[in-house]
Amino acid sequence: MSHDLAVARAATLQPIAAIAEKIGIPAEALDPHGKYIAKFDGDFLAGLKGRPDGKLVLVTAINPTPAGEGKTTTTIGLGDGLNRIGKRAVIALREPSLGPVFGVKGGATGGGRAQVLPMEAINLHFTGDFHAITSAHNLLAALVDNHVYWGNSLGIDIRRIVWRRVMDMNDRALRATTVGLGGVTNGFAREDGFDITVASEVMACFCLADDLADLEARLSRIVVAYTRAKKPVTAGDLNAAGAMTALLKDAIKPNIVQTIEGSPALIHGGPFANIAHGCNSVIATKAALKLGDYVVTEAGFGADLGAEKFFNIKCRKAGLKPSASVIVATVRALKMNGGVAKADLARENLEALRQGLVNLGRHVVNVRSFGIPVVVAINHFTSDTEAEHALIARICAEQFGVEAIQCRHWAEGGKGAELLAEKVVALCEAGTAHFAPTYPDDLGLADKIRAVATRIYGAADVVISAKAAADLAAFEAAGFGKLPVCMAKTQYSFSADPTLLGAPSGHVVPVREVRLSAGAGFVVAICGEIMTMPGLPRLPAAEAIHVNPDGEIEGLF
Amino acid sequence: MSHDLAVARAATLQPIAAIAEKIGIPAEALDPHGKYIAKFDGDFLAGLKGRPDGKLVLVTAINPTPAGEGKTTTTIGLGDGLNRIGKRAVIALREPSLGPVFGVKGGATGGGRAQVLPMEAINLHFTGDFHAITSAHNLLAALVDNHVYWGNSLGIDIRRIVWRRVMDMNDRALRATTVGLGGVTNGFAREDGFDITVASEVMACFCLADDLADLEARLSRIVVAYTRAKKPVTAGDLNAAGAMTALLKDAIKPNIVQTIEGSPALIHGGPFANIAHGCNSVIATKAALKLGDYVVTEAGFGADLGAEKFFNIKCRKAGLKPSASVIVATVRALKMNGGVAKADLARENLEALRQGLVNLGRHVVNVRSFGIPVVVAINHFTSDTEAEHALIARICAEQFGVEAIQCRHWAEGGKGAELLAEKVVALCEAGTAHFAPTYPDDLGLADKIRAVATRIYGAADVVISAKAAADLAAFEAAGFGKLPVCMAKTQYSFSADPTLLGAPSGHVVPVREVRLSAGAGFVVAICGEIMTMPGLPRLPAAEAIHVNPDGEIEGLF
Repeated sequence: MSHDLAVARAATLQPIAAIAEKIGIPAEALDPHGKYIAKFDGDFLAGLKGRPDGKLVLVTAINPTPAGEGKTTTTIGLGDGLNRIGKRAVIALREPSLGPVFGVKGGATGGGRAQVLPMEAINLHFTGDFHAITSAHNLLAALVDNHVYWGNSLGIDIRRIVWRRVMDMNDRALRATTVGLGGVTNGFAREDGFDITVASEVMACFCLADDLADLEARLSRIVVAYTRAKKPVTAGDLNAAGAMTALLKDAIKPNIVQTIEGSPALIHGGPFANIAHGCNSVIATKAALKLGDYVVTEAGFGADLGAEKFFNIKCRKAGLKPSASVIVATVRALKMNGGVAKADLARENLEALRQGLVNLGRHVVNVRSFGIPVVVAINHFTSDTEAEHALIARICAEQFGVEAIQCRHWAEGGKGAELLAEKVVALCEAGTAHFAPTYPDDLGLADKIRAVATRIYGAADVVISAKAAADLAAFEAAGFGKLPVCMAKTQYSFSADPTLLGAPSGHVVPVREVRLSAGAGFVVAICGEIMTMPGLPRLPAAEAIHVNPDGEIEGLF
Repeated sequence: MSHDLAVARAATLQPIAAIAEKIGIPAEALDPHGKYIAKFDGDFLAGLKGRPDGKLVLVTAINPTPAGEGKTTTTIGLGDGLNRIGKRAVIALREPSLGPVFGVKGGATGGGRAQVLPMEAINLHFTGDFHAITSAHNLLAALVDNHVYWGNSLGIDIRRIVWRRVMDMNDRALRATTVGLGGVTNGFAREDGFDITVASEVMACFCLADDLADLEARLSRIVVAYTRAKKPVTAGDLNAAGAMTALLKDAIKPNIVQTIEGSPALIHGGPFANIAHGCNSVIATKAALKLGDYVVTEAGFGADLGAEKFFNIKCRKAGLKPSASVIVATVRALKMNGGVAKADLARENLEALRQGLVNLGRHVVNVRSFGIPVVVAINHFTSDTEAEHALIARICAEQFGVEAIQCRHWAEGGKGAELLAEKVVALCEAGTAHFAPTYPDDLGLADKIRAVATRIYGAADVVISAKAAADLAAFEAAGFGKLPVCMAKTQYSFSADPTLLGAPSGHVVPVREVRLSAGAGFVVAICGEIMTMPGLPRLPAAEAIHVNPDGEIEGLF
């Protein structure tokens, strides 16, 4: 049995009502899902509106590497640490996607003594939110083809249907398909394909909506197809948004679970961080701010993608004002950024570490550019050496002007993150945060893309393809010019080249395609190849997963 | 607002723990899903094994017509009626499928004062069981294509992959597709298609399994493809069954809800009644028999399909011994069987009624052929006349030797089904039931098909295509000869011609194709066209469904 699983099994869970009570949620406001998971009641949520907000803390990271950074683990550890030092802290995370659980081994519920529980349930169906999103998405897809089948009064051009189908599964065979084959009764043959559910625009709408009415309005605006004259056809035109909203009525309520140490964690929503914005739901974040003095949340991938979108999309649109940010790094991942191969990471290598630290330094500058004070969390691994930690601390202090705090929450739980918690409290209480996005709403769309590329990625410029430029102009002409941009770029580099580690500068970011997400409320800029339907590996984790005779699931970690 | 919805909204629900307590399920054995739905704990279920069984009553019906029969409504009304006359009755139903909810208007939770609640939740995601089945099915599909992609060491012939994908949606465009298009990284292009989730063999395995271990064994036996040498490749060969079982670990626990009158109802599983056997789960039925003195259950479509499979597949394989059967009919549906058009059903028409009654008579004889005593329930409609009811009662008594009881549970709830309940109790207590299936296990597969066609359908013979005959021989050679047969035939007629109403005889049933469901444990005989993926109508119910400002779903009825 893995260490993580052994720790999870050894934990004694409290009834979820006891966890909810810690942050003032009465038992009657809970919709329980089993003994250790609940949703809150919509009425309770609505009743929170007038309360003051707690402090919002974003946990982000350096560019991800195969060595692992531990962003979720640190988010959980920091929440536990804040609770240990007497603050009322709530953790706000994304829900894991089911598909990847069966691919490369590993769940998404933290690790060691910094985990959210019950691990198996959260990693598999949880409360069914993603299934509801899958159903709502595919209902819309069925209604599109059904409209065409029964006479196509809206004049949809079947070559211009842009609403693909989704499945919460890693299934490469579904990336490119044809549908409607087999004759008259099956409709019109056309090209189609499936994305993974987390890449659905329904997911992005769900995570950015203020409430159910706002969700329905967003769903109505989704563009599903164009006519021959290139006029957009929306979900609203198909009268689809009401039924989609009905499917999402319970899913939209935040889910509450607990950490190993009994801290409350709201886990809700989980859009892809490339084609979408990669943050948990606005509804859960806002609820957490009403319930806790401190809310610790995270955003997908490294700070160049996750934090940038958290600030420029989520905070801007939801009116959130973060107080501090934690940038997570590990000695191992910094050494990889300095050119060390994965096999050699266990050996001390101060020179590589020094070279890799430029990646961290760039992220520190970037997060500060949003007006948010920063602390660095070094997530401790057993192979780290004292000299390595000392070097990080020194360079962070001397060159980046930031404190780097060693954290041992994986081994020790919240106790191992107390120092980090104290530093976060100090940053929040100093009140130095003055949140400002990278660009104003009324900058042109192309200039918004350029602003992110040059100011966040360190690029010299962007090259926008002729087709993309024409589309951006069309979006502006159609009244979408004030939307923020959602950058779809490799997570491995500040550039569009995944092999360019460290802190490259002078590079040019190619924008080959742009897409309008009118429901979510952003324009996606696609820089290089992006994958919206993963595949399974040669030896899928699924082959090792089974239920043992005691009814416990093995192989999920 | 519809009458059904108004009645449902006016009902005061009891906490689900109070309902469960009525049949001896302690609160700590429940996994609640919201306030009014729960699953039972697996340990509690296992602890029931030693208890004596209650009486099992099957509610079935004449051949369905667009006029409606009200089989589910009668099942619920009878359960309420039995509880009113002092028996401890448990209702055991199938879960509604999500797809059809958005198609032709209407849920599947009964009607009038005979409903199970909460209607919206049961009709939409309920406890996510069907989503879990969808995920397990599609995981297996992804593993098949993934195996081929990574070298195909089992030698799967991609032209002979028989495991399609599923979605719980009415979506005709997915009936026939191609997948794996788009180049090397997406796999091998091949023909594929989607069925609706209820048509999945995973659903059939789920509903026939005794427990989780039996479920895993059944999933392992599913045949997903053949090699070039026509050797079967199973889910077990792909190491898929463990992960599929993990996905179904919670779904396999029965769900408990309540009727408007507070009777406990177990709603669990729901396989198609054409390609599969159309009955709720064996696990729920067996649990209900341990918890109630009377268990009222139903089977899909008319008695020629639903009851036949209930007896020949479910009861045979699960060792169930039913005590009585109720055959539901309506004046309207009998008149349609007698040739009256739907628009003319409100007018009294004794001659048409007399002609249509032959359909009921055939079903009475058929159900008795299984050794089960029968009562007829005439589900009262407001347009019925006294003369019509008197005619039915007289012909039933004189020609079919069966009592026909007028039931008013739709208008009056359990009170309207008390007479029926008393008759059912009398039949059960008389102890005349001696269950016997239509054919023994060791009859040849073709002869089993012939036995059902001639003895149940009144056919002169069957014509089995050369391909089907060869396949049956191959199944027998491979050791599957002792399986029962699962007939896939139109539900509208005793014959394979859906327009042939009444009680046709002398017809010939064509068997154009046979399929092995090695996991479920039956051989499907396809007689005529069958549809495993429905489409949406011209005006889908989805267009009228929405959430009102009070958070209630409108348009589901």
